[in-house]
Amino acid sequence: MKYSQLFGKTKLEAPADADSVNAKLLTQAGFVDRLIAGVYTFLPLGLRVLKKINEIIREEMNAVGGQEIAMPSLHPREIWQQTGRDKTMDPILYRTKGAGDRDFVFGPSHEEIVTPLAAKYVQSYKDLPVALYQIQTKFRNEPRAKSGILRGREFGMKDMYSFHTDDADLDKYYEVVKTAYLKVFTRCGLDAYVSEASGGAFTDKYSHEFAVRTQAGEDTMLLCEKCKYAQNIEIAEAKFDDLQPADEEEAPLKKVNAPRGITIPENAAFHKVPEWKILKTVVYKLKGGFLGVCIRGDLKVSQKRLESILKEKVRVATKEEFVENGLIMGFISPIGINIPFIADHSIKHIKNFVTGANELNEDYLNANVGRDFVVREFMHLTDLELVCPKCGNKLSEEKAVEAGNIFKLGTKYSKDCNLYFTDKEGKKQIVTMGCYGIGNTRLLGTIVEACHDEHGIIWPKAVAPFAAHLVTLGGDEKVQEEAQKLYDYLRENDIDVLFDDRDESTGKKLNDADLIGIPVRLIISKKTIEKKCVEVKRRDSKEADLVPVNDVLKFI
Amino acid sequence: MKYSQLFGKTKLEAPADADSVNAKLLTQAGFVDRLIAGVYTFLPLGLRVLKKINEIIREEMNAVGGQEIAMPSLHPREIWQQTGRDKTMDPILYRTKGAGDRDFVFGPSHEEIVTPLAAKYVQSYKDLPVALYQIQTKFRNEPRAKSGILRGREFGMKDMYSFHTDDADLDKYYEVVKTAYLKVFTRCGLDAYVSEASGGAFTDKYSHEFAVRTQAGEDTMLLCEKCKYAQNIEIAEAKFDDLQPADEEEAPLKKVNAPRGITIPENAAFHKVPEWKILKTVVYKLKGGFLGVCIRGDLKVSQKRLESILKEKVRVATKEEFVENGLIMGFISPIGINIPFIADHSIKHIKNFVTGANELNEDYLNANVGRDFVVREFMHLTDLELVCPKCGNKLSEEKAVEAGNIFKLGTKYSKDCNLYFTDKEGKKQIVTMGCYGIGNTRLLGTIVEACHDEHGIIWPKAVAPFAAHLVTLGGDEKVQEEAQKLYDYLRENDIDVLFDDRDESTGKKLNDADLIGIPVRLIISKKTIEKKCVEVKRRDSKEADLVPVNDVLKFI
Repeated sequence: MKYSQLFGKTKLEAPADADSVNAKLLTQAGFVDRLIAGVYTFLPLGLRVLKKINEIIREEMNAVGGQEIAMPSLHPREIWQQTGRDKTMDPILYRTKGAGDRDFVFGPSHEEIVTPLAAKYVQSYKDLPVALYQIQTKFRNEPRAKSGILRGREFGMKDMYSFHTDDADLDKYYEVVKTAYLKVFTRCGLDAYVSEASGGAFTDKYSHEFAVRTQAGEDTMLLCEKCKYAQNIEIAEAKFDDLQPADEEEAPLKKVNAPRGITIPENAAFHKVPEWKILKTVVYKLKGGFLGVCIRGDLKVSQKRLESILKEKVRVATKEEFVENGLIMGFISPIGINIPFIADHSIKHIKNFVTGANELNEDYLNANVGRDFVVREFMHLTDLELVCPKCGNKLSEEKAVEAGNIFKLGTKYSKDCNLYFTDKEGKKQIVTMGCYGIGNTRLLGTIVEACHDEHGIIWPKAVAPFAAHLVTLGGDEKVQEEAQKLYDYLRENDIDVLFDDRDESTGKKLNDADLIGIPVRLIISKKTIEKKCVEVKRRDSKEADLVPVNDVLKFI
Repeated sequence: MKYSQLFGKTKLEAPADADSVNAKLLTQAGFVDRLIAGVYTFLPLGLRVLKKINEIIREEMNAVGGQEIAMPSLHPREIWQQTGRDKTMDPILYRTKGAGDRDFVFGPSHEEIVTPLAAKYVQSYKDLPVALYQIQTKFRNEPRAKSGILRGREFGMKDMYSFHTDDADLDKYYEVVKTAYLKVFTRCGLDAYVSEASGGAFTDKYSHEFAVRTQAGEDTMLLCEKCKYAQNIEIAEAKFDDLQPADEEEAPLKKVNAPRGITIPENAAFHKVPEWKILKTVVYKLKGGFLGVCIRGDLKVSQKRLESILKEKVRVATKEEFVENGLIMGFISPIGINIPFIADHSIKHIKNFVTGANELNEDYLNANVGRDFVVREFMHLTDLELVCPKCGNKLSEEKAVEAGNIFKLGTKYSKDCNLYFTDKEGKKQIVTMGCYGIGNTRLLGTIVEACHDEHGIIWPKAVAPFAAHLVTLGGDEKVQEEAQKLYDYLRENDIDVLFDDRDESTGKKLNDADLIGIPVRLIISKKTIEKKCVEVKRRDSKEADLVPVNDVLKFI
């Protein structure tokens, strides 16, 4: 493709309304065009990338036996009423009326279509298991679409649905798809992790998310390089020494006079308890006010981690602020003070803490969390190293984007839509379902979030819109001629080349090449012709090489 | 693919609600599933065909310089108000409300999106011409969706839009696309013709339709094999000898006594005029009543053609019916009679006809159409051979389906959406547009309408879901083994095979193969193994051959 002919050239400036790296770079480089927030047109460059992503997804879904279909978006409302999601998903449903005053929902998901469809074709255990997927458009009335193409109102999605005779068969297939998903992300040039969903035990058992490491992710995640386990930092927990004697009972809260020093060792010495029996309380000044943080006396609050969780800079409150708020230095406690408190996981299982009583030289004995005081949330607030609960390897804290999720649906939709099969004994049984989603357009945005620098996008080879970006420098006719020859040669060898044949300045052309981010840049100039070479540079490297024309293919 | 694993197997019966050959065969054979009228799911087999069609369309659009993009379906209503189509297309628009009470239209077409998009990227004459296309879903609130996937509420479409500096450039490109369209249809195994739209001079100049010959088409068309010209039979006109003297003036209508015989020769002899001066009037009995047909005295009404146009059987009215309706045999005329009349084109330019006066032995002289009587429509009602107005070749009458259309949009949307460019002289000029549509899902249905027999579909090779259908006969283990070997061998040689490995009766398996319609059927049975052969049969042939295993590839 000659760049002079390409529809959707680079813009000098990123759009003013771009709210994310992906929106900024993809729009400026001519990959997408925003119609309204959350609704984008894919321009020729963008569609080329999307198709490569789709093909990778398709290959991996086919490899696990998925059969591709294409379901419609226009769903009769009745089916959505049948599953109850007409109500539960009401806020994000786009609705319409059709001929004969019939109500429709524009599909935000396709359980309501695929389950009755399966019921038409699945009769016997011989028809199971089966997995159906589509790469299709979803419509979701997001109140506030944001993050460019990461969260759209109309967006592309690969959704697969699997049907099984029982839970054991679903469990087995679920693991197979989990591995296939990791392959998809890896092939797209991403570093992906399987994350337990952050909603606690129930969803933990029935669903997983995939986190992709990016510099500018929405979430802070703890990642295990070894087993690809990921955990949202909000639910991470360090491993503590088991200090609490199992037989200790909660004793009654008791206020005592305590003319002591204000350090933890002084406090512990005065009360004759180990330091871990002291409830340490630190008050921080935040943008919106004050926050108390409770932690075991022998541990330290990590201000860095606190800031990373709160997503803002914080500082310990000053003496003046203590006075203003009626707080007594060294005798703070979460009991009876009117500021919000959070706590480190370390205090969760310790009984009968010693803590200040918010009066000078007065302490409480036997303070118990949940009984005598409450905290808004337990978090990982120490700088203790976190280890992977799966494999014991060290976890690292990274920014990440959610790039896919998988669910064990069980029999919810089978029941709603009458999806039964006849087992080997001739008995009617309910079908068990799983579902597996990857937003393909979101994935494209995620790749940009993960793969860029200050000059533009750096496409991983497998999803790059072109394999090489050929640029001529100088308006010389000979240069154009040689470049045209190389262009023809590369195309004859099935290399997709974008040929910037424009009569533009060197600066403009090189900046555009960096912005567009094709993996290999080839330059033909007077200088390279003299040397019978091509200047070759990888987008992800600073150095350029002069390569003989015949060796260019090898380089790409 | 093993048929035992395939989702979407054949059904014993066609669905009761199938309203067309395509709906019947595609549903029964497991290619599509109807959600509601006009809204279908494409099952694995159907999607395979659709992808092949898409790829053919894509290749031909790329070959004429089209650049593929993907535009969204969710359109802010304001843009539709801007072009006026919010009103003019109102009946078929699906509408919805989104966040912030914003009004949306689900795209039934994309001029409203592509024109403002072009306006963002087209600044100078150097950016023109450019052609953008997409293969995307359209939503149209059809009051009555019918003909299976031929006319849907949600359907696939390739729509291309071209942008030009002037009409001459558009005209040139329009012809290029016209040729590309014929290639698309030919590659899909169809016999396609370019038809002038039937809406008269205005649309005739600005738009063309593509008619595909099918046994069960919606329209009756006149087709020219030589130049691929097509014409709807409703506007066809035979060529007549030019009998009317140019200088004859319309004379005053005059009633005269005419004691004559009732045949045309007797009538002409009595009035001393040539037979072509006699207005012959024949009265037919239709389902809904009587219809008078006028034709030149020297010509005959073709009852067959009349029936083909009226789409019902007709007969000449009986003597009794003449009496009942107060009609006088031999003296009928369209003047002053209370039944509807149509006429053959032959009377259009003849002046001063002799006609009966609907009284015994009374005639009118100087009867002129338009002045003394009117007819509802002029049609081609003789059995005269029709010739192509483009090349003079004989036209043949065939059933056809409209499979695409192209329009010269001119500056309508450029004006509405402010699409201007700067010409070589630096002056602001308006962009001229063309648009070009092929319904890809409709095309799939059209192929089935054109390519089937009483046993099922007969897929043209280029769009067949698989290249070969391998069938085992008999439950013998050796047979399964040999078939598996052949299956592996074919796949190693990149042949897409559907392998019917089921334990089903011979009849069921052969019927299914015919129904599904894959071009080549391969049978492995005890008999073929003995002969070290494979039984090979083309779907479109009655005869099967025994071919040595090594020659099977050649056959496919």
